[in-house]
Amino acid sequence: MARNRGGGRFQMSATPALVLAQIFAAAAITLMLVWILHFRGGVSLKAKNLQRLLNAHHVLMLFGPIISTGQAIMAFKTIPGRRKVRKLIHMLLNLAGLILGVLGLYAIFKFYSEVNEPADLHSLHSWTGIGVMGLYVIQFFLGFSFFLFPGAQKNMRTDMKPWHAFFGLVIFILAVFTSGTGLIQRFRFLNLLKEREAYVLNFTGIAIILFGIAVVMSVVLP
Amino acid sequence: MARNRGGGRFQMSATPALVLAQIFAAAAITLMLVWILHFRGGVSLKAKNLQRLLNAHHVLMLFGPIISTGQAIMAFKTIPGRRKVRKLIHMLLNLAGLILGVLGLYAIFKFYSEVNEPADLHSLHSWTGIGVMGLYVIQFFLGFSFFLFPGAQKNMRTDMKPWHAFFGLVIFILAVFTSGTGLIQRFRFLNLLKEREAYVLNFTGIAIILFGIAVVMSVVLP
Repeated sequence: MARNRGGGRFQMSATPALVLAQIFAAAAITLMLVWILHFRGGVSLKAKNLQRLLNAHHVLMLFGPIISTGQAIMAFKTIPGRRKVRKLIHMLLNLAGLILGVLGLYAIFKFYSEVNEPADLHSLHSWTGIGVMGLYVIQFFLGFSFFLFPGAQKNMRTDMKPWHAFFGLVIFILAVFTSGTGLIQRFRFLNLLKEREAYVLNFTGIAIILFGIAVVMSVVLP
Repeated sequence: MARNRGGGRFQMSATPALVLAQIFAAAAITLMLVWILHFRGGVSLKAKNLQRLLNAHHVLMLFGPIISTGQAIMAFKTIPGRRKVRKLIHMLLNLAGLILGVLGLYAIFKFYSEVNEPADLHSLHSWTGIGVMGLYVIQFFLGFSFFLFPGAQKNMRTDMKPWHAFFGLVIFILAVFTSGTGLIQRFRFLNLLKEREAYVLNFTGIAIILFGIAVVMSVVLP
């Protein structure tokens, strides 16, 4: 609100936010891998390994809708080169985020179909998770058709750009929110209290939140 | 990111976002009251009523750090009158949000001290909750001293404004995030699956998220 009055602008470049984002991304990935590999026995997409299927859901969702999407958002500021190249990399990173997200959905649906748990699709996590994936798909195809191929008219693109950026950020923040609720559900599910593992899990969540804030900051700063 | 290039600006006023925010706020409050009063037996700050103490935590946090803070953020666009009046109302709504938040913290600490549960302060919800309250207190006092009393120099205020607005939004989004994780914890704690109550609880969470998005949108739109 303040930015619209008196011309107050940020007296700082986006560089520190971009650097912080990479540090928090590395921290989140490291903590997630320590958790999954050291405490939880690794990942698998085969139905025989139920716990590893659940682990695969966590890992895929972190690398996809969180890390890849965050990198896609920052690509316009991190990737050197022409604008066309940046746009292409932005699209490819989002595509990677989307594919990993769909695989992550596959892993969790497979898990629930194996355990026959009635909790299937009853949690807020599942609601926002499926909602955010749906919005992500729509956002991707709208962005692709407007800005890449076939591409809309110049003035229409100019009108759409801030909306594309805004809803992209909203979807990303919702993904961060959803990953936090997912970690909390696993926390409760495992009933891990007072254990070292609980701290690894919580710090993974904190690292993801800080990554999210840094990504948003890198967009807002000039 | 797109807004910094080619001058693409939002071709829409903030009014629809402000209206939507009030609708989602009303929905969240109604659903929360239905949940707490109809399904959960009301609120109390007395230690004898353990469940009502927990209920009080939910209600206080919704009315304080979510609704009051959200209204405070929108006050610059919803309140008619001079800028000084708006600033004062912005401060008072934040003060209300802060006081209700502190009471909400009191309720949950009292609850845990009564039940002697070892889960005390081990969840991601408690970490981000206490973190966000700490940041909120700092943000309030910095804002108060820079923009109200004693007030910083004009050019310093202009430099600070976008940061104040940005971190205010970050704190608000973190509060929305934390309330979602809190609802999920209660959901798991109560083990309510396949019941009507579960839907009331989830839709409360959805209403809070939509309120959060509408508030952020009202700030971004001109």
